[in-house]
Amino acid sequence: MNTFGTVFRTTLIGSSHGNLVGVIIEGIPPNLEIDISNIETFLARRAPGQSKVTTRRKEKDKLIVEAGLFKQRTTGEPFVAFVRNSDVDSSYYEEIKDTPRPGHADYPAFVKFEGANDYRGGGRFSGRMTIGLVIAGTIAKQLLKQVGIDVRAYTKEIAGLESEVINTTEDYIYSEQNIVRVPDNEMIESVTNAIMKARKDGDSVGGIVECTINNLPVGVGEPIFDSIESKLSHIMFSIPAVKGVEFGSGFNAARMKGSEHNDEYFYNESQQIRTKTNNAGGILGGISNGMPVVFRVAFKPTSSIPKIQTTVNLQEKGKLESLKVRGRHDPCIVPRAVPVVECCAAIAIYDLMLQGGITTHAD
Amino acid sequence: MNTFGTVFRTTLIGSSHGNLVGVIIEGIPPNLEIDISNIETFLARRAPGQSKVTTRRKEKDKLIVEAGLFKQRTTGEPFVAFVRNSDVDSSYYEEIKDTPRPGHADYPAFVKFEGANDYRGGGRFSGRMTIGLVIAGTIAKQLLKQVGIDVRAYTKEIAGLESEVINTTEDYIYSEQNIVRVPDNEMIESVTNAIMKARKDGDSVGGIVECTINNLPVGVGEPIFDSIESKLSHIMFSIPAVKGVEFGSGFNAARMKGSEHNDEYFYNESQQIRTKTNNAGGILGGISNGMPVVFRVAFKPTSSIPKIQTTVNLQEKGKLESLKVRGRHDPCIVPRAVPVVECCAAIAIYDLMLQGGITTHAD
Amino acid sequence: MNTFGTVFRTTLIGSSHGNLVGVIIEGIPPNLEIDISNIETFLARRAPGQSKVTTRRKEKDKLIVEAGLFKQRTTGEPFVAFVRNSDVDSSYYEEIKDTPRPGHADYPAFVKFEGANDYRGGGRFSGRMTIGLVIAGTIAKQLLKQVGIDVRAYTKEIAGLESEVINTTEDYIYSEQNIVRVPDNEMIESVTNAIMKARKDGDSVGGIVECTINNLPVGVGEPIFDSIESKLSHIMFSIPAVKGVEFGSGFNAARMKGSEHNDEYFYNESQQIRTKTNNAGGILGGISNGMPVVFRVAFKPTSSIPKIQTTVNLQEKGKLESLKVRGRHDPCIVPRAVPVVECCAAIAIYDLMLQGGITTHAD
Amino acid sequence: MNTFGTVFRTTLIGSSHGNLVGVIIEGIPPNLEIDISNIETFLARRAPGQSKVTTRRKEKDKLIVEAGLFKQRTTGEPFVAFVRNSDVDSSYYEEIKDTPRPGHADYPAFVKFEGANDYRGGGRFSGRMTIGLVIAGTIAKQLLKQVGIDVRAYTKEIAGLESEVINTTEDYIYSEQNIVRVPDNEMIESVTNAIMKARKDGDSVGGIVECTINNLPVGVGEPIFDSIESKLSHIMFSIPAVKGVEFGSGFNAARMKGSEHNDEYFYNESQQIRTKTNNAGGILGGISNGMPVVFRVAFKPTSSIPKIQTTVNLQEKGKLESLKVRGRHDPCIVPRAVPVVECCAAIAIYDLMLQGGITTHAD
Repeated sequence: MNTFGTVFRTTLIGSSHGNLVGVIIEGIPPNLEIDISNIETFLARRAPGQSKVTTRRKEKDKLIVEAGLFKQRTTGEPFVAFVRNSDVDSSYYEEIKDTPRPGHADYPAFVKFEGANDYRGGGRFSGRMTIGLVIAGTIAKQLLKQVGIDVRAYTKEIAGLESEVINTTEDYIYSEQNIVRVPDNEMIESVTNAIMKARKDGDSVGGIVECTINNLPVGVGEPIFDSIESKLSHIMFSIPAVKGVEFGSGFNAARMKGSEHNDEYFYNESQQIRTKTNNAGGILGGISNGMPVVFRVAFKPTSSIPKIQTTVNLQEKGKLESLKVRGRHDPCIVPRAVPVVECCAAIAIYDLMLQGGITTHAD
Repeated sequence: MNTFGTVFRTTLIGSSHGNLVGVIIEGIPPNLEIDISNIETFLARRAPGQSKVTTRRKEKDKLIVEAGLFKQRTTGEPFVAFVRNSDVDSSYYEEIKDTPRPGHADYPAFVKFEGANDYRGGGRFSGRMTIGLVIAGTIAKQLLKQVGIDVRAYTKEIAGLESEVINTTEDYIYSEQNIVRVPDNEMIESVTNAIMKARKDGDSVGGIVECTINNLPVGVGEPIFDSIESKLSHIMFSIPAVKGVEFGSGFNAARMKGSEHNDEYFYNESQQIRTKTNNAGGILGGISNGMPVVFRVAFKPTSSIPKIQTTVNLQEKGKLESLKVRGRHDPCIVPRAVPVVECCAAIAIYDLMLQGGITTHAD
Repeated sequence: MNTFGTVFRTTLIGSSHGNLVGVIIEGIPPNLEIDISNIETFLARRAPGQSKVTTRRKEKDKLIVEAGLFKQRTTGEPFVAFVRNSDVDSSYYEEIKDTPRPGHADYPAFVKFEGANDYRGGGRFSGRMTIGLVIAGTIAKQLLKQVGIDVRAYTKEIAGLESEVINTTEDYIYSEQNIVRVPDNEMIESVTNAIMKARKDGDSVGGIVECTINNLPVGVGEPIFDSIESKLSHIMFSIPAVKGVEFGSGFNAARMKGSEHNDEYFYNESQQIRTKTNNAGGILGGISNGMPVVFRVAFKPTSSIPKIQTTVNLQEKGKLESLKVRGRHDPCIVPRAVPVVECCAAIAIYDLMLQGGITTHAD
Repeated sequence: MNTFGTVFRTTLIGSSHGNLVGVIIEGIPPNLEIDISNIETFLARRAPGQSKVTTRRKEKDKLIVEAGLFKQRTTGEPFVAFVRNSDVDSSYYEEIKDTPRPGHADYPAFVKFEGANDYRGGGRFSGRMTIGLVIAGTIAKQLLKQVGIDVRAYTKEIAGLESEVINTTEDYIYSEQNIVRVPDNEMIESVTNAIMKARKDGDSVGGIVECTINNLPVGVGEPIFDSIESKLSHIMFSIPAVKGVEFGSGFNAARMKGSEHNDEYFYNESQQIRTKTNNAGGILGGISNGMPVVFRVAFKPTSSIPKIQTTVNLQEKGKLESLKVRGRHDPCIVPRAVPVVECCAAIAIYDLMLQGGITTHAD
């Protein structure tokens, strides 16, 4: 299946060095307004070459919308949008196609597709495929915002350097103003330095993105298989380089006692039911409980590093090769992954809302 | 959606205090042999009352197969099986239905289903729903085993007490012989004591289950949305009480360098391509790479604890209540969750194999 | 796929001579009232042995509801219901299992399932599987009725003897009062005689069922693949013995001119938009247009006839056999098919309404 | 749902007067060869302006393939192809947007999409959407042909003038050589004249397309909901203007006796099991039985006619309007519908083969 979602359905098309990368989105209700320039803004947040901590590859990533809008409003038909691949040099991939890069999908993809897959630039396993996720996610974010729901992601940790997050509203805005997307003034310099050092060493570093969803109504999510956690983790693990996902107190919950972990209820001043703590991360039994949904996503260090590595030759049994991965790669993918996590969260949550019959636009 | 899977499709039916809990399984290929007594063995591994560290509730959990088999072989029709609920006393749930238990789905479920859901015993949010997962998973495990694939889970950690796992084959067998399912001789007593102490304190503890899938062919998993990680995490987060899932080096990967994390390739003595390390947990680009698939699942401490907690009264705005959750609950769900994780892994992996056209039975 | 529907999802379980036949229904909104005795009434309309024109087989067809209701209202969980197979004698099917009956699925099923399918009583190809359709359809009919939509089927033609239908409301009630379900007083005797003669001759006859859906709101149905015609024909052709489906003027439309066929619009006395004629059968572009939806379903004559027929021996290449199909079979399936068509129509329409976000119950 | 198919999944994109019309196809196995020029040939068979009996509208319908191929072979990724809309004049549709054309989807679409749908040129309800079906269907036809399966359609009847079909192989080739696609030499002139007369009268005529699928293996199709008839009728009724579908003896079966209708089995000279007659149209219990699959599709006369018709004004309650539909329309859609029926049949059959695990390409 190339599609995520039950009602709001996102299908990714294209590949890294093919004609284009993009998305088909089904299930957007008709007669809603979509802000195209806002999608372009989000694509720029994801784009390469945006700062000194990212790859120097320059793609213009010009958004083309081919179907789904009429007089600036949604028509109910599938929404089709993509960007064309421009700054592409595939010659290197012809050169290394028999020596699979460690940490990349090259080898299992070669076996799975009998060598017929488009291996150039990583093909469909490239981070470039997330462009489609950003387009769909920005639309989902817009539609969620129309009913007051906010989705926000930021860098929680890079190279082991953790940021403290106190107020997701302000911290989010702050993190959008620095190139490492750290919500903590104190940490910007050290995080930036850690990335720059990895680049200088021909190496890479990983990190953790945290995401918060505010104002989600109670009752979003379905019992058992379409729990919020199931849907969010499903799409998060579709982002290249993700190795872990946790909600609320997450892996730490495994070390807590029930009496510590359970969040007690109270009525707030607006007579709304809330919990005193939020170890559940806003989710009980897979369903939203009125508290902010909070989760973290762990990214491994970028696989493409200039350091020499050992690999096999696919065409000669038993033969090893030394491989130096060339090209312009991010020494840390986390800053560019922040908007992708945010977009993926919006896709999953908006789909669950439509699936649950919870209208997301004013009538 | 109440169904997991694309080809091998698992639908859970029933609820904790309704007539039955069970499963409909579609997509089992015809003409395969199924061992029913093996399913019963697995149900016993999951069953309450199996040892001093579990709840004292006694359910016979007698398996009834109603459709899908003819002369001991699969027919190609939907497989229908369930167990009837017997040791059920619902009176307590009528008593507390307006005072949602902290850490349970009571409150969001009440809002979502307009009070019409069967709240007795937690309804569909009960751990008892995992009986259907165990039935489906045991069948998947049997069919995977017919082509040499082994799925094994064990207790990695309880109450912060971690077990060392050296050889998943032997350790798995060992862990099946002790009541806490710990694969480490040294840890059995301390882990057991930690659980018994929690019970005595009217409290509960959490833990981590690890699972290993051996001999999976290269090429299982689909690009992007149906990655192995996406599918496995999706079903893992459908198990009640799960708060985190990580693959290979997991959250630790976020603190590693690319040069440490990348697994270098080599040819083994059978001229098979393998990696020297397994930080990837057997998965690259969402596809199996020939190494063991390894992942960990974090369980929160059991929500149902005898300690007095504060909650709200759903019928009277502003009113708080003191709640003492009665009943026979597990002080730690982890030992009984071990076979559930194993079964869920088998369901997801077998579905991906069928989806990818990889035959799992000898022709 | 064993499931029909996108939101209101019907999955049939069991087989003719297995333990049971029944249905799992997903997607019924929670908190709706369901009348169980009404389902039993419909099962009796479908049941064998109900009159002299049907098979003499007597099945009690006692409805068992196992899940999905709590305090007489829907819970939002999958609805599980079935009837147990009682009046079953499978010995004959063992006898003929190598000599496929002409007009039956025996031979292609044998090839498809490698002989592993439950062939007794036709297995999943038996008309008995329509019990699940009747259960699901009666529920859909009830929920449609709560918002004023009526689904009605009747015998349009048997053995070439056509009934005139003038007023679907009155004619429907009338057809429910005679054993051949003919809405035309003049035709009852001749139709009954034609069936009785076929029985006497050891032969069978076919016929046509017409169905009318009144008060469907404008806008039900989706463009292209989920057109009303696509969905209705899909489920109609799932009923055993159906060989043709047509809407409005149907095959006759192929012989009309555009100026005759187009239905012109006008405003009725309530200022509603209606058409003067209804050649479209209430559907334009796959979407309901406010006129009654009208369609016809052609049933072939019952395949099981006592007359001697020639067939092959599956175990001996080249060998022919004379076969006399024994057992108690309907000389004409049409009267019992009438409620099945009605139920299937309700299933498809209710699903389309939920899919289109058109609420079917008063809020 | 905008998608047809379970494994080979066809999603239509675009609209009549939008940027483009096209298709996304998922589930094509990797490493198969696709002949692009053959798709172009089929698009020309469907294209307007191809003869004097079709509309004079001239669209170049230049095929653009954007994704899914690499070095002329399929990659396993979604196949994306479309044609751009060129010969478009939308001004007329602005003029008539408040006066729905009789026989068109204008009115129900207006209600369904709250006026937000792209109504120009009929939007998604236009026959132009079948371009995507032709692209997908030609690919399916190619892949079916690689394993010896042939799908062939031809004009069975236009304006009540029926053609005799004796040998589908030769007759098909013959029908491809005349502009009305009639497989009967004697009928070409009278059929052509009937269409030309309708055009001269400012009117239109309908007809019937017959389709034959040869060499389909036994066992294709699934029990109950995914019967061959269910799947074929589903996609046939997605083609604009279709009002009826029948298989084998079809509606005529309703007037036959069982002893006439049942097809008796025999062993042919190659010791294959075949039936003496083919009233079943090659399908028993929804599954292929080794005989040619035969079905007929009824098309209503083109709705767009120059004759003056009465309609309503959507903006003024109670007001009627006289409408003269302008533009260049086909006086009979049947000749251009022939390749569309053929393509849709190939899509449904190829999907059923993949769903049933029946490989369609040599290994």
